[in-house]
Amino acid sequence: MLDKTIIAVDAMGGDRSPKKILDGIEISLKENENLFFKIFGVKDKLEKFILNNSLIKNNSEVINVKDFILDHESPLSAAKKGNSTSMWQTINSLHNNDSHIALSAGNTGALLILSKMILDTIEGIDKPALAGLWPNKNGMNIVLDLGANIECNAKNLVDFSLMGSALYKSLFPENDPKVAILNVGSEEIKGHEIIKNAYKELKINNKYNFDFDGYIEGNHIMDGKANVIVTDGFTGNIAIKTAEGTANFITKNLKSSLNKLSMLLSYSSLKKFKNKLDPRKYNGAIFLGLQSPVVKSHGSTDSVGFAHSISVCNKIVKANLIEKIESNLITVDA
Amino acid sequence: MLDKTIIAVDAMGGDRSPKKILDGIEISLKENENLFFKIFGVKDKLEKFILNNSLIKNNSEVINVKDFILDHESPLSAAKKGNSTSMWQTINSLHNNDSHIALSAGNTGALLILSKMILDTIEGIDKPALAGLWPNKNGMNIVLDLGANIECNAKNLVDFSLMGSALYKSLFPENDPKVAILNVGSEEIKGHEIIKNAYKELKINNKYNFDFDGYIEGNHIMDGKANVIVTDGFTGNIAIKTAEGTANFITKNLKSSLNKLSMLLSYSSLKKFKNKLDPRKYNGAIFLGLQSPVVKSHGSTDSVGFAHSISVCNKIVKANLIEKIESNLITVDA
Repeated sequence: MLDKTIIAVDAMGGDRSPKKILDGIEISLKENENLFFKIFGVKDKLEKFILNNSLIKNNSEVINVKDFILDHESPLSAAKKGNSTSMWQTINSLHNNDSHIALSAGNTGALLILSKMILDTIEGIDKPALAGLWPNKNGMNIVLDLGANIECNAKNLVDFSLMGSALYKSLFPENDPKVAILNVGSEEIKGHEIIKNAYKELKINNKYNFDFDGYIEGNHIMDGKANVIVTDGFTGNIAIKTAEGTANFITKNLKSSLNKLSMLLSYSSLKKFKNKLDPRKYNGAIFLGLQSPVVKSHGSTDSVGFAHSISVCNKIVKANLIEKIESNLITVDA
Repeated sequence: MLDKTIIAVDAMGGDRSPKKILDGIEISLKENENLFFKIFGVKDKLEKFILNNSLIKNNSEVINVKDFILDHESPLSAAKKGNSTSMWQTINSLHNNDSHIALSAGNTGALLILSKMILDTIEGIDKPALAGLWPNKNGMNIVLDLGANIECNAKNLVDFSLMGSALYKSLFPENDPKVAILNVGSEEIKGHEIIKNAYKELKINNKYNFDFDGYIEGNHIMDGKANVIVTDGFTGNIAIKTAEGTANFITKNLKSSLNKLSMLLSYSSLKKFKNKLDPRKYNGAIFLGLQSPVVKSHGSTDSVGFAHSISVCNKIVKANLIEKIESNLITVDA
């Protein structure tokens, strides 16, 4: 048990929970024995799924809670429910050092606010940020901030670069992080003052232990040249949602353009295509900058997608992400 | 000639110019006799394409210029070339009321700066904005600003709503404009102060002659619920380029997933799909808010795409876009 990754899981958030959460846990345990789950939820609702499942029973502890946060509840109302909810207890398990990492498929706004309320910020980081995975030509990007901070200053963007490159190294140890700031052009004179100051800090003070690749435009995010894309939470949220909407629009149009015969004939090709772009593979946004990371699974994902976010949790713990962030900070101070 | 739409065309900008420009003009003239072109370019370079083309010869005037602006030249360097360039002369033709509208496939930054230098702003509009076409489920969106103004205040966003809805009415007279502000959530409390103030102005002061639909998130831009999407130039530029990058990424992946046989078998379906999403169909960004609109064709488009942007020019002139904007402004003042 000592070297197992202990994941605190909010079993009550997202569509078709708690069933999909427990199914996701089962998928993960079949792949990896070195996981242990602290499952926070209303016991009555969980029991029937666990009762005859020795794999989950032997590798988890169920902690009963009285209440849970609804998916469309306001963050304020969620906070008012206090420590009675599964989400609060899940995050609090990190505060008490009972778990290594926390995971929820519930209400994003509530998760961000409760995390900031309950957990300490890493010293030297001003604002925690929400980081996500985004496919590119050669593999995967880390993009942050996806919406935790609507307004950011230059120091925040530099912090995001440090945290994002540490996260990239944790998830993809075989590659080197290459940071770029999202902007409306690639020339130095483009953009507003906040971006220009972050650019100057990263470019001129060559003291960071990651590559800085300058500015990147929206149409090059998926080129694979940079792999850590840094932006404020307003722009990041709009960018990732626009990409999501565009992808949906195109695949729906593709479906309606193909007739049944050509669907049938192209079945294996289309399956390969779908598989490559399967959003479940990059499920899991990571709230970075707190004493321990809090991972947000997409609320609408299924058990396979939830299992992917468990795998993200495990990689982050095994790679000592927080130490990596702190070591990036030390490099800067020196 | 009196009721013909007179379009001033910069023949020197964009890839494969002036040939594609002249080919595009020819395509347009075959479809519509009521066009007349003032073609600004280096005569030596144009002559061989026009010499034996009576259709173009009879419906255009070629005005010789000494110089032109390179596609990757800085706006400052472009401005320094003064009135010797084809782009300057094209825009200046509006200033002199010699043409109804101006069109260029050249350097965007230069086009925005020269337009602002040469043309007057519509009284009541603080900042002109770059508007673009963006497909949605039911047809087409107008999205603005796409990058003319990196920073905007609430008044600018309200101006963009007035101008965008007037443009929508001009291009799609059979539909009603429905304005929405791009934001990170659809609830009233979301976003930063500038957005919230524009929202209040449009929502509470119910004096505008277009529907205001509140906030829209990035993943709903293509849903077709709203059709005039308003945002600052930084966010708009990132959003449209991110959509472009995502679309390219997906279609490239689709191509590489399909083997030759299934390509062949799905040929007509894929052609239908490609045709529906053909970017040439929404070629043409419109710089709005000046005494007359200046239209920017994509530099990399071909003659068919350029002909589409000529059609956009014609619709704008025929619909009296500037009058529509002014009438929206009058509604507000009243």
